[in-house]
Amino acid sequence: MNPCDIIRKKRFGGELNEKEIRAFVDGAVDGSFADYQVSALLMAICINGMSDRETLALTLAMAKSGDTLDLSDVPGVKADKHSTGGVGDTTSLILVPLVACCGVKMAKMSGRGLGFTGGTLDKLESIPGMSIEKDIEGFKQQVREVGCAIIGQTARLAPADKVLYGLRDVTATVDCLPLIVSSILSKKLAAGCDVVVLDVKTGSGALMDTEEKSRQLAETMVRIGNMSGKRFSALITDMDQPLGSYIGNALEVEEAIGVLSGNIDGPLKDVSLTLGAHILHNSGAVESVEAGIALLNEKIKNGEGLKKFSEMIAAQGGDPRVAYDTGLLPKAKYHIDVTADRDGYVTAMRTDDLGNAAKRLGAGRERKTDALDLSVGLVMKVRVGDKVRKGDVLCTLHAGDGSDRIGAHNLVHKSILIGDARPAPKPLIRAVVT
Amino acid sequence: MNPCDIIRKKRFGGELNEKEIRAFVDGAVDGSFADYQVSALLMAICINGMSDRETLALTLAMAKSGDTLDLSDVPGVKADKHSTGGVGDTTSLILVPLVACCGVKMAKMSGRGLGFTGGTLDKLESIPGMSIEKDIEGFKQQVREVGCAIIGQTARLAPADKVLYGLRDVTATVDCLPLIVSSILSKKLAAGCDVVVLDVKTGSGALMDTEEKSRQLAETMVRIGNMSGKRFSALITDMDQPLGSYIGNALEVEEAIGVLSGNIDGPLKDVSLTLGAHILHNSGAVESVEAGIALLNEKIKNGEGLKKFSEMIAAQGGDPRVAYDTGLLPKAKYHIDVTADRDGYVTAMRTDDLGNAAKRLGAGRERKTDALDLSVGLVMKVRVGDKVRKGDVLCTLHAGDGSDRIGAHNLVHKSILIGDARPAPKPLIRAVVT
Repeated sequence: MNPCDIIRKKRFGGELNEKEIRAFVDGAVDGSFADYQVSALLMAICINGMSDRETLALTLAMAKSGDTLDLSDVPGVKADKHSTGGVGDTTSLILVPLVACCGVKMAKMSGRGLGFTGGTLDKLESIPGMSIEKDIEGFKQQVREVGCAIIGQTARLAPADKVLYGLRDVTATVDCLPLIVSSILSKKLAAGCDVVVLDVKTGSGALMDTEEKSRQLAETMVRIGNMSGKRFSALITDMDQPLGSYIGNALEVEEAIGVLSGNIDGPLKDVSLTLGAHILHNSGAVESVEAGIALLNEKIKNGEGLKKFSEMIAAQGGDPRVAYDTGLLPKAKYHIDVTADRDGYVTAMRTDDLGNAAKRLGAGRERKTDALDLSVGLVMKVRVGDKVRKGDVLCTLHAGDGSDRIGAHNLVHKSILIGDARPAPKPLIRAVVT
Repeated sequence: MNPCDIIRKKRFGGELNEKEIRAFVDGAVDGSFADYQVSALLMAICINGMSDRETLALTLAMAKSGDTLDLSDVPGVKADKHSTGGVGDTTSLILVPLVACCGVKMAKMSGRGLGFTGGTLDKLESIPGMSIEKDIEGFKQQVREVGCAIIGQTARLAPADKVLYGLRDVTATVDCLPLIVSSILSKKLAAGCDVVVLDVKTGSGALMDTEEKSRQLAETMVRIGNMSGKRFSALITDMDQPLGSYIGNALEVEEAIGVLSGNIDGPLKDVSLTLGAHILHNSGAVESVEAGIALLNEKIKNGEGLKKFSEMIAAQGGDPRVAYDTGLLPKAKYHIDVTADRDGYVTAMRTDDLGNAAKRLGAGRERKTDALDLSVGLVMKVRVGDKVRKGDVLCTLHAGDGSDRIGAHNLVHKSILIGDARPAPKPLIRAVVT
């Protein structure tokens, strides 16, 4: 199949068939589609779009471009969760052990990515001894025995995504619905779970900045995901301010442990439990989402969730005592307060810039090869709508010797907006797509 | 300037400014725009189009991407001619010496290209001893002294076009108006002439298959060309059958000499003289196109045109006797007739396939490195509208030992359509754009 014929068809708005899409995806991986041909087709897709049929075919072709996990020899329902990424967004560390306590297996593979802060893998690596590398058999064995595992995805999981994303990143073709959908879903399908819940963020710190775009993304992912034969659902959740109060790798582990211990309430807990409850409901473990939330709350109160977290840490070589003593996590050398320079209400936050401030401190990567300082980050002291007085602490920077402390301080200061009127509160969970 | 920002702007339908277009063109040449970025932008241009302002900026940036010829030290008006390419289309060899006889300097640089038959350069190389390589000073000296020259364009003439065309060819982005226009015009502008006449072919053997598309191309080229400060005009001419009766390299030289000798009339002569007359008129050498045609006819009758052709051959190292003895041209070993298998009228020709048949005989290139057999080709014995009887010769193949004689025979046979009704004649010159 000639690459030019396929490119031409999409250039003129045609619908590519399964065979053509497979030739494109396989060709991108084996080099029979040159990178300049791949990028030309990606651009044509961006401008002329893709039908659901095409998006499903693209997703499946990408999922099959490398290893696919067969979890059929792990008994029970296997579930996975994906977030489009936000700031202070550490729901996985909370819901994975909690859901596992309810009998649904959480078999989670994460990519490393280039987030504001490190990804889930980096957060886990801040736990002394913890390893996120395991072969497939070891991964399955842990899921079977402990009930949950979070490891780094193998390089052979949907390798087409790596090739396509690498080109999208340098050709202004990242923000394109069918390409985003197929990128996310291909990895989820290759990872072999039966039930997947998606957390689509919306707002100033999200991939999609408007609720309309977030809804479109969530709906498309659930539609295409369900067409593939799995059970998908999605929440659209607020990212107009950080979800948790802790931003940074060890800091977010600390907050997750706080939630699992029953010591921390608030939006992070609410979103985590709602996502978890959707997994339980879609898995048939509970009769309603409400019942799921109640059950997960019970697992916090009776300490089972925290215990499961410490078991998961132990199974991956980490120090299980961390679950009960966050003093064992790496700590930042310097604490620097950012204070309010006037009285008023917190009217808004530039969430992406709070993320960038954490990055400047060393919590996130600019390039894939950058080293992280797992101890650094931000601890937010206010949320949107809070009343503050001049001099009140808005945020505390946790910094190290390698941190750009002045840059981060200025960025945080500019990112927390204070005005005269208390803003109308926005719901945390904007919509549910099933 | 970040390539992604420029690509993104065009992706979303924005108008690129001069600076952005220059960054793109220079970047494509110096590699700061990677080829996958160039091809992504080319695709966005294909789908979202370009304004006249953008097309002009692209043309100028491409023209300035390498050497630009300064012909100001050659006295008089300097003119150039370009054809979008057809079959049996050898007008340059006729009009260049004829126009030069009238005092307008013809300074023509040609590319080698991948036509059905070789390009003008290949045709000239069928003349024993003839060279199409000359340095700029030698080229200018010949134009100054002889009045005309046709040489191969230097590799440093609009090198951006080579880069862009190389990528367009393999990314289904060839057929795109602003890209075609800038590709053609950039080389004409870099070549430094004051007056340029364009021959835009329309029909089954043309770049543009419909008259509507040909007209759009001609109008855009003349508009953009004139915006650049030069004097452009264009003819839209018929390519629903070969223009001349001879198709092939030495064969076309032979036919051109026949026209210059006054021995051959017909469409090839008519188009050649009309193009030449437009050059004379735009150069101020005559008061009307009609007066130009009359003057050029005179130069045929008094033998000046043929003499100028032999002078040009001599100036480029060729055997000037060829002009008066076409027996000196290479001759094909085999002559094979293609005959009519029924009575009727020639209703149409698949001109592109007649070109492909000549290619199968060895007259044209599939790849840039292919060697040509300069002696082979077709001699058409009929034109559309002619009455034929079963067994009449429609075309004679001139073939060599390396020719695919059977393939070419079958292709020619299928390409000349015979029916019951005489088709309505179509005008040879469809439109003039000034």
